[in-house]
Amino acid sequence: MTSDQTRQWRLASRPTGEPTDENFELVTVSRPEPGPGEVLVRTLYLSVDPYMRGRMRDAESYAEPWGVDEPMEAGVVGEVVESNHDGFEAGDVATGNLLWADHAVADGDELRQVDPELAPVSTALGVLGMPGITGYFGMTDVADPDPGDTVVVSAAAGAVGSVAGQVASIAGARVVGVAGSDEKCDWLTDDLGFDAAVNYDTTDDLTVALTERCPDGVDCYFDNVGGPITDAVWGQLNRDARVAVCGQISLYNATEQPTGPRKLTQLIQTRASVEGFLVGDYQDRWDHALERLGGFIQTGQLQYEETVTEGLEAAPDAFLGLFEGENVGKQLVKVGERS
Amino acid sequence: MTSDQTRQWRLASRPTGEPTDENFELVTVSRPEPGPGEVLVRTLYLSVDPYMRGRMRDAESYAEPWGVDEPMEAGVVGEVVESNHDGFEAGDVATGNLLWADHAVADGDELRQVDPELAPVSTALGVLGMPGITGYFGMTDVADPDPGDTVVVSAAAGAVGSVAGQVASIAGARVVGVAGSDEKCDWLTDDLGFDAAVNYDTTDDLTVALTERCPDGVDCYFDNVGGPITDAVWGQLNRDARVAVCGQISLYNATEQPTGPRKLTQLIQTRASVEGFLVGDYQDRWDHALERLGGFIQTGQLQYEETVTEGLEAAPDAFLGLFEGENVGKQLVKVGERS
Repeated sequence: MTSDQTRQWRLASRPTGEPTDENFELVTVSRPEPGPGEVLVRTLYLSVDPYMRGRMRDAESYAEPWGVDEPMEAGVVGEVVESNHDGFEAGDVATGNLLWADHAVADGDELRQVDPELAPVSTALGVLGMPGITGYFGMTDVADPDPGDTVVVSAAAGAVGSVAGQVASIAGARVVGVAGSDEKCDWLTDDLGFDAAVNYDTTDDLTVALTERCPDGVDCYFDNVGGPITDAVWGQLNRDARVAVCGQISLYNATEQPTGPRKLTQLIQTRASVEGFLVGDYQDRWDHALERLGGFIQTGQLQYEETVTEGLEAAPDAFLGLFEGENVGKQLVKVGERS
Repeated sequence: MTSDQTRQWRLASRPTGEPTDENFELVTVSRPEPGPGEVLVRTLYLSVDPYMRGRMRDAESYAEPWGVDEPMEAGVVGEVVESNHDGFEAGDVATGNLLWADHAVADGDELRQVDPELAPVSTALGVLGMPGITGYFGMTDVADPDPGDTVVVSAAAGAVGSVAGQVASIAGARVVGVAGSDEKCDWLTDDLGFDAAVNYDTTDDLTVALTERCPDGVDCYFDNVGGPITDAVWGQLNRDARVAVCGQISLYNATEQPTGPRKLTQLIQTRASVEGFLVGDYQDRWDHALERLGGFIQTGQLQYEETVTEGLEAAPDAFLGLFEGENVGKQLVKVGERS
């Protein structure tokens, strides 16, 4: 590589299932020149993140797919080499979405200054960057624990999970982390102040392990992982629990999805929410609903149908017919006549 | 059966998978006598509902399991035969949780009067009873469509779905019903004012059928069914869509759950909510989070770790390592040194 060249990683091919080295190609190209308003940045750190697996796919998602034979984007902290933008000069440290490359050019408006005096510059990609902020808002705004709540965090020793768990702890919650090694679990409980941790890799029965560590059930679940861990946590959810679906890393390479609540990745894409409900919780507004429904019937806005099976002796058949979809409207069993 | 006897259905055994007639036993017993404050009711209509499948199981849920060889409970509309309660006299029509039986006794405080002049008495078990009220609140409070939203309702021709869909329609939404026969679909569109309907039983590709009927995607999904229908609807969810999980009838008899977002029944039990989120949606509060996180680091309340892989050439390995959980904290690739 000469001084007017730079190396960059390109997507060589799209993976099926687990990506391999074959999907990446390191090429040497001419070092780009910054145009008007642009900045040439020499990479100090680049960030690799699980969500990038989605960008290797040829499918629309919240992040645009990478093109085959095109350079791949990444969060980068780098040093400004040359600037045509008022906000930056050579020697500044900047962060933004650049490339898996030694050098890249970006619009100066798309970069942020990083103050090397405040914290190590690498933190702009971690605890003080996208992952940290993800952990912060996912915990404060989506999972939203109250003091004393039990909060479970999966991938708890990761960039997002480690922040999410500590934010819950600072908010007064009891925090249980799930991670994949004893070293990670020790870090969570000894250094980060998690109340307990589960090593999913050496635990025979995740449900038992969680029950032991969450004797009062689970009030909030910050889900980075999906799959069997999520299966086990959902089994421990308390009434009105809140689940923040942040990531599903165990499923990003999956070609099938045999475990875990399936399709949660779609919730991330759409920021959709799913909520269980029971009519019994609306007991104090029952009369309100009856009044509205009765009114709708009177105005002809609400129609109804009943499927009536005759005779007490036919009650099981009527019940079994529900599962075959035999009824239209309410399935009833007529047992007697008014006298 | 003599005049001092009554018939009642009992749970003969607990089903595995689909229930059969073998699980039910019709017995003749002495007609019960009402005690102080109690009322003897002769059943006119009894209601069979999908949630009852849960009561056949020996597992804690939101409704208590039925005992084997014990009579089974049901919503009943019946005529009062004998009353020891001030609120009822012989000849009144009452509704409450009674038995799959010709006669049953209940505490008068647990019964409601039904006015036979207002509507057919059977509606107290349907459109003006638990199912109608479930459809009402599930739509108004959980799915909560805005005018113009596209709303999909599964089991749309059922007791709950038919009300839920019409309530959405009254609220100004565009409503698409999924049901299991052409007759049901015709009822939805011709009589109930649904904008479109899909017969899941004769549709080759549910996703295609839904895409055609929901060209602007799905904003609200009222889910009574689960399974493949739910798989197909989730694929069409719009940004910030809301899914109300009311029932999962396609799964109540399942011993495995190969399709559909698994474990949604647990959301009903817990009224838990699940919400996808993306950090990019919090762009305008990014600085707030940075300030909080920076402060937590300064006070020692927030710890972080970084796993740094050296060299641009190792970037794919660093990325692939994420899926093996090789990192603790943020995974970075160090590409250069500050000059």
